[in-house]
Amino acid sequence: MSKNIEEIVLAIDIGGTYTKLGLVNRDGSVLSSNVFKTEASQPFGKFEKRISQEVQRLLSISTIANMVCAIGIGAPNANYRTGEMINPPNFKWGKQVPIKNMIQEILDRPIFMTNDANAAALGEMYYGAARNLKNFVVLTLGTGLGSGIINEGQLIYGQNGMAGELGHVNVFADGRQCNCGLKGCLETYASVTGIKRTVFELLANSTTESVLRTYSFDSLTGKNISDAAHQGDTIALQAFEQTAMILGSKMADTVAHLEPEAFILTGGLSQAGELFLRPLKNYMEAALFNAYRGKVKILLSKSESAEAVLGPAALAWEGLN
Amino acid sequence: MSKNIEEIVLAIDIGGTYTKLGLVNRDGSVLSSNVFKTEASQPFGKFEKRISQEVQRLLSISTIANMVCAIGIGAPNANYRTGEMINPPNFKWGKQVPIKNMIQEILDRPIFMTNDANAAALGEMYYGAARNLKNFVVLTLGTGLGSGIINEGQLIYGQNGMAGELGHVNVFADGRQCNCGLKGCLETYASVTGIKRTVFELLANSTTESVLRTYSFDSLTGKNISDAAHQGDTIALQAFEQTAMILGSKMADTVAHLEPEAFILTGGLSQAGELFLRPLKNYMEAALFNAYRGKVKILLSKSESAEAVLGPAALAWEGLN
Repeated sequence: MSKNIEEIVLAIDIGGTYTKLGLVNRDGSVLSSNVFKTEASQPFGKFEKRISQEVQRLLSISTIANMVCAIGIGAPNANYRTGEMINPPNFKWGKQVPIKNMIQEILDRPIFMTNDANAAALGEMYYGAARNLKNFVVLTLGTGLGSGIINEGQLIYGQNGMAGELGHVNVFADGRQCNCGLKGCLETYASVTGIKRTVFELLANSTTESVLRTYSFDSLTGKNISDAAHQGDTIALQAFEQTAMILGSKMADTVAHLEPEAFILTGGLSQAGELFLRPLKNYMEAALFNAYRGKVKILLSKSESAEAVLGPAALAWEGLN
Repeated sequence: MSKNIEEIVLAIDIGGTYTKLGLVNRDGSVLSSNVFKTEASQPFGKFEKRISQEVQRLLSISTIANMVCAIGIGAPNANYRTGEMINPPNFKWGKQVPIKNMIQEILDRPIFMTNDANAAALGEMYYGAARNLKNFVVLTLGTGLGSGIINEGQLIYGQNGMAGELGHVNVFADGRQCNCGLKGCLETYASVTGIKRTVFELLANSTTESVLRTYSFDSLTGKNISDAAHQGDTIALQAFEQTAMILGSKMADTVAHLEPEAFILTGGLSQAGELFLRPLKNYMEAALFNAYRGKVKILLSKSESAEAVLGPAALAWEGLN
């Protein structure tokens, strides 16, 4: 434990599978933490009861509740301005889930809430790979593609608190069906699920031998694909190449909007390392408007998944500033 | 002339054809103005001499020079941070044109410079269609497609002062050749030049009769196309439809980045009115991520082209704040 704990924040990361709680000081040290299953397909009331118990358990140690000066929450489809989750996919909690009000009743502190990728962007700026950056974009390449945009050291929230959904920019007018109802969204190509779809398309279109022919769609993981690529599997390498081509082009579009100094990648797809980063950099450069060439870095997040609470913690500290 | 002129700014709009100067007060009244031919294909020294004369002519009236408290400049490819024009296409003035330093020697005042579309965005916020808006994007649909992005009442400049080049987001991977060297840039489709190219493609691919078959590429204007469309010309109507489809989809991508409350359109292509706006709104809505639907307005700029100095004027006032 840090010596000078005077103020801490309660950080909450609500994910589709797990919800993580942490008590975090200004330096980003997680003093105490807690994980439980979100059970997103169960009624919201059940989650409400559970998180109340877990927060109380975390705060039960003597005087710690008095030290909590704010609460930060990251959650899918969170609206910064209303404190609600709006139509979160894979959650059966309704169309507008009043997370902020619910937490307020458990512990009455200033509460700040935004989507998980926005929180991750603040976490990178406070404690991670973006510590010295003021203009950057975080891309979380996991099941879907999430994004958080920092301009001049500030998150871009947009008119209704819902900015930064780069997973849903369009790649092809009549492309792959997306969970969101649209077709051709970036996350249907550039995410762990996206590269799985690309692998299956390549397996269908070619007769090339591949270890990936032994997997069902449901059993195939991002790690399987990157392991195969590292062993020289043609299909796996082609899949990374195609994914890099599409994502690189769309990152160039993002640069044409915002001119960031860097992208920071997190999530399963980013863990393939140079295999993915090298073609990604090349394709992005080739698609950049001339004024931007050679100026935009692509960095990997340093944070462990265990540090998912650092994003919401940074959000809380940022909100108090 | 306004009664209480105490402070004014010198506003300069450098265009490929004309350069406009104006003395503008806080209310946006243009007290005095001046236009001359830029002669962008002549050496920079010639422009330098000419603008010096014109500024002096504008400031010759008695004590007016003392009232000028700042200078705002809008120019193609202007870098806000360095005060240079960087590789301006169609200008033969070199790769880095030190406009800010040059003006500083003519009149020593705080100088603010940005690209013309960024200046136009500030002009709309101070004096135009965006007077009550804090999050919006201006698209100038002229010879090319320029853009200026306002987030929380502030222009987005980016890491090196070059953000907001939406004319160069990619529409098709191997699309139309762009002036900038890339292929498939948005401005090769969604601009006056872009719709001309679409008309010529439609004329080439079909046998449909059209009044537009009587024009050469060089003689065809945006107004010819919108006049033909208003008279029911099939090719012209198809050209507007295709342009709206492409621009609408890319505007939806911009919303996924920034969640603005509105787009404001200016320039020749926007003057086609409802003929273009109606399909544009429909295509944008159809491409929007669900969280954004029904919330983003498309507005037309109210400003006359004669008011080109209002953007640079707003930039100067903004810089003084």
